[in-house]
Amino acid sequence: MAAWQTLDVASSRRVDIIDLTPQLTALCARAGAREGVLVAFCAHTTAGMLLTEAEPRLLDDLRAWLERLAPQRVAYAHNTIDDNADAHLRAILLGHSVCVPVEDGRPALGTWQRILFVDLDGPRHRTVRAGVWG
Amino acid sequence: MAAWQTLDVASSRRVDIIDLTPQLTALCARAGAREGVLVAFCAHTTAGMLLTEAEPRLLDDLRAWLERLAPQRVAYAHNTIDDNADAHLRAILLGHSVCVPVEDGRPALGTWQRILFVDLDGPRHRTVRAGVWG
Amino acid sequence: MAAWQTLDVASSRRVDIIDLTPQLTALCARAGAREGVLVAFCAHTTAGMLLTEAEPRLLDDLRAWLERLAPQRVAYAHNTIDDNADAHLRAILLGHSVCVPVEDGRPALGTWQRILFVDLDGPRHRTVRAGVWG
Repeated sequence: MAAWQTLDVASSRRVDIIDLTPQLTALCARAGAREGVLVAFCAHTTAGMLLTEAEPRLLDDLRAWLERLAPQRVAYAHNTIDDNADAHLRAILLGHSVCVPVEDGRPALGTWQRILFVDLDGPRHRTVRAGVWG
Repeated sequence: MAAWQTLDVASSRRVDIIDLTPQLTALCARAGAREGVLVAFCAHTTAGMLLTEAEPRLLDDLRAWLERLAPQRVAYAHNTIDDNADAHLRAILLGHSVCVPVEDGRPALGTWQRILFVDLDGPRHRTVRAGVWG
Repeated sequence: MAAWQTLDVASSRRVDIIDLTPQLTALCARAGAREGVLVAFCAHTTAGMLLTEAEPRLLDDLRAWLERLAPQRVAYAHNTIDDNADAHLRAILLGHSVCVPVEDGRPALGTWQRILFVDLDGPRHRTVRAGVWG
């Protein structure tokens, strides 16, 4: 059984999409399990995790879509406390964890799948916890 | 390995957001595993699970946002059978399970993260299944 | 510990919702574990997995709702490369995996819950990876 590892992630803009596939692939190799489930967990309420193709124009579309579904400049009640309700709602939409099969000691991703961390209220330093179970 | 445990949840309004973090923290302590994955699963099609900050104004924003993305009073085809298509769609948006790292026998949540159950077609008695694996 | 198994899924329309509950129930029986977590993973970026009631009118509502939240015919930047940005965004909304409790060797689903695969850019041949862990 692998222990939980911490990945440090530094975002550089408010909505920043960062490909963690290389680090998570290395983590699986270090964990040593041939088969299992890779769980990657975002320990923040204004950031999320997702799987998709890391094609730059698609990621621009994703940013525009998040703005359409949960616009930043709306009169949210939470914004009287902290000006980031949109980031919370977008994080709920994306979710906070991904579960990926591990086979032959590697994440068994589809051809175009990448494991992406999305900061929704950056730039910040963030942490992702990840481990291989099974 | 821990067995699945059942949490009973009683909602008191149609869209009711209930913080299960205390019960799930206690469940992890009883399970006895120092490290693993806490899986909490909502066994209903018109309720969901999510992680976010349990700040009351944010939860009001969340309710308003769900109504904007999947309004209750729209001519859904399903509503000729059962008047709750919006609740199904909202549950699909939120998802039915959360996976949270367990360390030192506790859910390793971020500072503001709470594990929330959301009834979308209450008030009802609901059940959540949870266990620690790894 | 069960190895990952592959389910082959053939979709027959662009947005096709296919009930995998019978195959996944059979997979749990073959896996032999009395208790654990069933993880089913969609290895594609333009398809997803979800849990809901497999009521045909509700599934029509779901298709209409996906079109409302992420319309097919919008000027997405990604569509200059591959004409399916809407399918990527819809897949992000739905998510790529489901985690379901296994008890007595079966998926412990709620009364109305079914495990559904959603092709968002069909018709195609697709693969779902699934296994029981714990």
